[in-house]
Amino acid sequence: MPEEIYTKIVQLDENDPIAHTRAKFLLDDDLNYMDGNSLGPLSHAARKATQSALDDEWGKMLVGGWTEADWLHLCRRTGHRIAPLIGAAGDEVIIADSTSVNIFKLAAAALKLNPQRKTIVTERGNFPTDTYMLEGLARHLGRDITVRLLDRDAIEAALDDDTALLVLTHVHYITAETFDLAHLTELAHDAGALVLWDLSHSTGAVHVDMEAVNADMAVGCGYKYLNGGPGAPSFAYVRRDLQDKIDTPLPGWLGHRAPFDFTDDYIPALGIDRLRVGTPPILSLSALHGALDIFGAVPTEQLWQKSQALSQLFLERVEAAELPGITLLSPRDPSERGSHLSFGHQHGYAIVQNLIDRKVVGDFREPNAIRLAFTPLYQRFADIAKAADVFIDVVRSGTFRQDQYTCRKAVT
Amino acid sequence: MPEEIYTKIVQLDENDPIAHTRAKFLLDDDLNYMDGNSLGPLSHAARKATQSALDDEWGKMLVGGWTEADWLHLCRRTGHRIAPLIGAAGDEVIIADSTSVNIFKLAAAALKLNPQRKTIVTERGNFPTDTYMLEGLARHLGRDITVRLLDRDAIEAALDDDTALLVLTHVHYITAETFDLAHLTELAHDAGALVLWDLSHSTGAVHVDMEAVNADMAVGCGYKYLNGGPGAPSFAYVRRDLQDKIDTPLPGWLGHRAPFDFTDDYIPALGIDRLRVGTPPILSLSALHGALDIFGAVPTEQLWQKSQALSQLFLERVEAAELPGITLLSPRDPSERGSHLSFGHQHGYAIVQNLIDRKVVGDFREPNAIRLAFTPLYQRFADIAKAADVFIDVVRSGTFRQDQYTCRKAVT
Repeated sequence: MPEEIYTKIVQLDENDPIAHTRAKFLLDDDLNYMDGNSLGPLSHAARKATQSALDDEWGKMLVGGWTEADWLHLCRRTGHRIAPLIGAAGDEVIIADSTSVNIFKLAAAALKLNPQRKTIVTERGNFPTDTYMLEGLARHLGRDITVRLLDRDAIEAALDDDTALLVLTHVHYITAETFDLAHLTELAHDAGALVLWDLSHSTGAVHVDMEAVNADMAVGCGYKYLNGGPGAPSFAYVRRDLQDKIDTPLPGWLGHRAPFDFTDDYIPALGIDRLRVGTPPILSLSALHGALDIFGAVPTEQLWQKSQALSQLFLERVEAAELPGITLLSPRDPSERGSHLSFGHQHGYAIVQNLIDRKVVGDFREPNAIRLAFTPLYQRFADIAKAADVFIDVVRSGTFRQDQYTCRKAVT
Repeated sequence: MPEEIYTKIVQLDENDPIAHTRAKFLLDDDLNYMDGNSLGPLSHAARKATQSALDDEWGKMLVGGWTEADWLHLCRRTGHRIAPLIGAAGDEVIIADSTSVNIFKLAAAALKLNPQRKTIVTERGNFPTDTYMLEGLARHLGRDITVRLLDRDAIEAALDDDTALLVLTHVHYITAETFDLAHLTELAHDAGALVLWDLSHSTGAVHVDMEAVNADMAVGCGYKYLNGGPGAPSFAYVRRDLQDKIDTPLPGWLGHRAPFDFTDDYIPALGIDRLRVGTPPILSLSALHGALDIFGAVPTEQLWQKSQALSQLFLERVEAAELPGITLLSPRDPSERGSHLSFGHQHGYAIVQNLIDRKVVGDFREPNAIRLAFTPLYQRFADIAKAADVFIDVVRSGTFRQDQYTCRKAVT
């Protein structure tokens, strides 16, 4: 690495106002973990919260934990921690179920709110669970609901007076391309439709302001940039004025206004609580709650600024190397993408395995994408500069053409 | 306690073939925990599995845990451990979501399997989430599906040629009354209906044999007698020959035949795996998986025999005391009830609080039920004899008429 670049990178780390958060994670010093958009790493706070839920709460309080440790409202308290990361009020976010299940609940509720309209518009090639859930919903409703799968440049023109709901993922899981939250929300509203945003690849690293864009509904993932642990439960957002109009198709007992009355009649809870269904997985939820503690002391704009600075550093170094066979699948302008970069290469899978062997952990997505995430809470600029050097070296050297990586293995 | 009864109880514990399993739980020696039908206690196995998932898997493997620790198939491996407890084959049980969500999935699938029929028959006064989920489903389907809520003695006569599905909870959450699994399943089949059994208050303590009764579908809870931890995920059972006919309304990406192909088209997995939806909460699931290890070495018939012996010991002692104001809400014949007893008393809530103060932990259910569970894995006969003495003493002494217990607090 040339001297002047080395000096610049040292300065970037020295001047990083959130550099101190790296120490909050249990990460080996020589590990370049660039898969935080698939599974965030374990933090001391998440570890402590889980151990406490296990030993001090479940172990000692037993069933009393529902009141003594307030497990009963942990979904709400954890939602309060996520709210500022998406520009929402505390009482607009709740934890429940998985992202898939929350998409189903909110899409069904949106159809009920727009009963004259028969079409759901969504993006072809989005992370597929979103599409599957919408189609499962349409198929079971038995009414003539149509799910229109469109290329992203055809979305705007498709919004019309039959559109009940627009479902979009803010940051694309492969390319990291973003939709303009404000613009698409406004267009949908102009057409009389509701919008459900999937913020799975945004929350915790990318600027999102639900209030500023007057968003209707959103869901998101707890285990990516929020570092909540494998399969951490999901969050759901509903704008306050819509909450009491939500008729959920999954009216579980914990979404009842008085669950402990055990009445045959379902009366929905007021507000966001009606999106609760069954008893939440407290150990996994505690890990998420603990992990979110780290965000409390970090201004969200610093997260997003550092994310962009990290990815630009990586991209500039890789592009300067003019690597053969590598194409950039993500937008070059950081304001048009989320917090990861994807590169295409015909041997993408093998390259990812070679990178992992050299402690640069990214992942591969079909058919040819090498995916590398930028996570401002625990990556240092020096890590990213080194990761770029390894990436350049692997692609240039051709070591990825090794037989042992011809058999692909599944990685979520 | 009279000498001959004391001697008998000592002998019962000495001759108990599964007495050794008590030591597998982290329970204070003087605690009479009789709320295992609400939340089972922490075991060393569950604790170790959770800590390992936290530190050795998530902490060290990071995203590699999906393959290296086989998180990807933990739902299936945990299902394999539950299967023998309900008389099912290993490939007939999967872990996914909550009990409420699984009821929704299977009820919707059953309606699709019986498309000419329009009625779901279920019990009035059952644990309400079951009813709520069925009504949520019917309301959103928009077709003329009727959910008939009937008293239990009216269920049989209601099964007719419009019944698509019968949904019943095997053991009633308040009274512990059981439905005859074989008889009701046969009647429903004779009427051309499918049956969905809720085994939440059965699994792990009560004899259940899905194969023997030719059951269609079942769901159950991971955190009661299975001791999987607060909000542990739920299990779903589908008879093998029905599995590939299931059209789930919640076709999440992990229920896809090839989830890592990320295709827009949903192709359901073969077999029980299609009931998977989103990414499961691995920490909570690991606790459940660990807890189930204890069942592996215990013949299920011994569980059920000891459960009956424990509850009969308690009942005989309480009935002999002829307590004023106390009524038995459960069947007297142990073959007609599950693994708990409920007693009615107009000051039921205050009595439960008094019992808890004296380390006999049961719970209260509206409007007047004192609920006490019998859990063969960790209760000793001596515990139950002592609990009966405390119960008798509290009711006789009238200490429950204390002001501090007039304000009820919620306990799940």
